[in-house]
Amino acid sequence: MGVVIASHPETRTEDALERLAALTHAEMERVNALILDRAQSHVDLVPKLAHYLIESGGKRLRPMLTIASCALFGPGNGNQINYAAAVEFMHNATLLHDDVVDESDMRRGKPAARKVWGNQASVLVGDFLLGQAFLMMVEAGDLKALRVLSHAATIIAEGEVFQLAKSRDLGATPKDYNEVVRAKTATLFEAATVVGAMAGGGSEAAQKALAVYGLELGWAFQLIDDVLDYGGASGRFGKNTGDDLREGKMTLPVILALEHADEAERQAIAAALGNHETGIGAVTEIVGIFERHGALAATLEQAHAHAEAAKRALSAVPASTMRDVLADIADFCVSRAY
Amino acid sequence: MGVVIASHPETRTEDALERLAALTHAEMERVNALILDRAQSHVDLVPKLAHYLIESGGKRLRPMLTIASCALFGPGNGNQINYAAAVEFMHNATLLHDDVVDESDMRRGKPAARKVWGNQASVLVGDFLLGQAFLMMVEAGDLKALRVLSHAATIIAEGEVFQLAKSRDLGATPKDYNEVVRAKTATLFEAATVVGAMAGGGSEAAQKALAVYGLELGWAFQLIDDVLDYGGASGRFGKNTGDDLREGKMTLPVILALEHADEAERQAIAAALGNHETGIGAVTEIVGIFERHGALAATLEQAHAHAEAAKRALSAVPASTMRDVLADIADFCVSRAY
Repeated sequence: MGVVIASHPETRTEDALERLAALTHAEMERVNALILDRAQSHVDLVPKLAHYLIESGGKRLRPMLTIASCALFGPGNGNQINYAAAVEFMHNATLLHDDVVDESDMRRGKPAARKVWGNQASVLVGDFLLGQAFLMMVEAGDLKALRVLSHAATIIAEGEVFQLAKSRDLGATPKDYNEVVRAKTATLFEAATVVGAMAGGGSEAAQKALAVYGLELGWAFQLIDDVLDYGGASGRFGKNTGDDLREGKMTLPVILALEHADEAERQAIAAALGNHETGIGAVTEIVGIFERHGALAATLEQAHAHAEAAKRALSAVPASTMRDVLADIADFCVSRAY
Repeated sequence: MGVVIASHPETRTEDALERLAALTHAEMERVNALILDRAQSHVDLVPKLAHYLIESGGKRLRPMLTIASCALFGPGNGNQINYAAAVEFMHNATLLHDDVVDESDMRRGKPAARKVWGNQASVLVGDFLLGQAFLMMVEAGDLKALRVLSHAATIIAEGEVFQLAKSRDLGATPKDYNEVVRAKTATLFEAATVVGAMAGGGSEAAQKALAVYGLELGWAFQLIDDVLDYGGASGRFGKNTGDDLREGKMTLPVILALEHADEAERQAIAAALGNHETGIGAVTEIVGIFERHGALAATLEQAHAHAEAAKRALSAVPASTMRDVLADIADFCVSRAY
């Protein structure tokens, strides 16, 4: 259905993120200035902790998507700057609370904020960033966009609670997993692209297309993250490989493996799940189980399908360099696994 | 300046809360129905935890203040129902996060939600309630009221971080304390009454008067809470007496006592502050120090002054039964200490 966007040679995928950054550079300077400004507070601990996270080398993919989604349709009404900063603040608030919930020690290769400033400050500064995100949305003054963002905030929290409730649940299904991914990750990508399209003056149909693009892209992104947590397609193990397992997260590789596992394999998985002492040996054994049952390959296949759906959605949007880059970003998100 | 509202005999104070409840009853039924509805989720853990807190016998003072502030000016445009529910959700989200931050075991005489469902679920369901609060505000569709609430969310979080930063700081000043109280408590009372006045169609001047009323009332309320934590004016000790001390909170009684304490008293306070093992004996000793230096009496005096300021603000509002009850509520808030 619709025009299929041609896939590009491997080189186009590799530098897709750099090309997106170059195309959004001028506006992202304004977004970054706003982010730093709104992380200010006369309470020292707020900017200290916020800047620690904000400047820790995140890709700023979500705000770039907002800026890019706006630029597909025109220069925008200016709201895209506030929307992009708000989306990044929501993302950072979620990271702060997630690290507390997951008892994570590391984030982006550095000690997690909660390890430096404690769980208490992480919870409260997360609340502060969420409040600032809403304030920036309110200042933009578009109730329709505000509804998208506040709805997303609710859905994300609900998805996180669902993930927590399913933690270490050996009966978790692919449907459960998909619900978690849609809520906790895909919804914010969707919100980021939709509010961008709104600021750009995209038609209702275009906004819907960008919603699908963001949702499918976010979905692919999370599936790949979950494969990367087990070393990716290439099995490159790092210090944090297997963290999802230690945190008891029922991601798709685990769920698919359990569907086919024999009793001994099932017991090995059950023993490692939610056990913070699970060492690299046990993770290697479990990745072996995944490979025996094709669990990582099947997860990658689903990520590919979502990335293709994201690219297809772009066919409803006028052709442009930005559209091509957004299509390449979908491929890039999947290519991270290799 | 302005008409002074006459103070009422003691009996008028005692039943002020019941009279406020009676006057707001019909609309509070709708607010309560909305609260229950919006605490729903297909993720079981969300309503379980939310209902546990929501139905744990809170007075619902803040939403009643929203309804009452609206009714001062007329039947309202209907938004007061959403606003009142949103204010209560913000309050409950704060309670969930506070209990995690303070490592509290009890809340409203029951085990705190975090003791039943864990810190993780408490953080995430707090986020959910905050998201739902914004969604209800967005549905009301008034950007001015939305700004009040999102600004309040930011200020509250900032105040909580400041309180955390000042925890166990023997150099904390009355100015620091006032900043914490204004931010973490008075701001939500102020928001509750202002958005009520907005829904009721109160003039700019009336909205300002209600802002002052809410702010001063909330301020008095927190000062009294902080006195009650040490047994109140009557020295009635309960199981949780001294919890602020154990949590290292620099409330006004501690700060004022430290200003006058000799070295031995200072050391006794320092040893008890932030020490979860501080027993009833040590708390009794410290209340003795407070009494020697008039710290509880001075705190009560400030609460009285704020309650009087709240009542004075009402002089800008047309006389009505509701206005009288709101004046009595200010006296009631202070009378809790006796």
